[in-house]
Amino acid sequence: MIDKTDRMNGLFDFYSALLTDKQHSYMRLYYSEDWSLGEIAEHFAVSRQAVYDNIRRTENVLENYEEKLMLHEKFHQRSALLDELSTSLQHDKASEASLKVLAKIEAIE
Amino acid sequence: MIDKTDRMNGLFDFYSALLTDKQHSYMRLYYSEDWSLGEIAEHFAVSRQAVYDNIRRTENVLENYEEKLMLHEKFHQRSALLDELSTSLQHDKASEASLKVLAKIEAIE
Repeated sequence: MIDKTDRMNGLFDFYSALLTDKQHSYMRLYYSEDWSLGEIAEHFAVSRQAVYDNIRRTENVLENYEEKLMLHEKFHQRSALLDELSTSLQHDKASEASLKVLAKIEAIE
Repeated sequence: MIDKTDRMNGLFDFYSALLTDKQHSYMRLYYSEDWSLGEIAEHFAVSRQAVYDNIRRTENVLENYEEKLMLHEKFHQRSALLDELSTSLQHDKASEASLKVLAKIEAIE
């Protein structure tokens, strides 16, 4: 369950802008704020089943975006390589100018 | 019109996986293969107006994705900085190891 939560929070970071307001709210409260299905249902005055169904569907929506765009996967590949490059440039005693450009690349994410 | 074509081909590179088969076909033929609206309409046995409407809607779909995810914009920012870093590392006479990692980062895009 922890793995699932990490996965959903990870995908949410990349694709939340593509969700509807309702999908956005339910996912944020359930996965990021750790509310229960019952608490979300009560807050929005809907059934627990409706919240459950919406969240399950949204999980599929997020996985579907990731399958097509791979933003989460590419981000992690790029982050690992940028860390490796940073270490390697320290060994090289690279110039301040190079390190500044590297920092700018890291800041784009 | 050239600018528009470049823009649409650029966005298509990033978001084509999110389009329906029909949107994908019309956009590819019109913007990338340079078919006319009439040629596309004849090929798919639909009206020229239907093709026109579909393409206009898909242009909005692509712009909407870009507004939310900015993949095209970030790609160009990152590319420019990676070029700058490559030049800077040549000045530094950086190690072969560093240049290899840089090449791997460039290959992710």
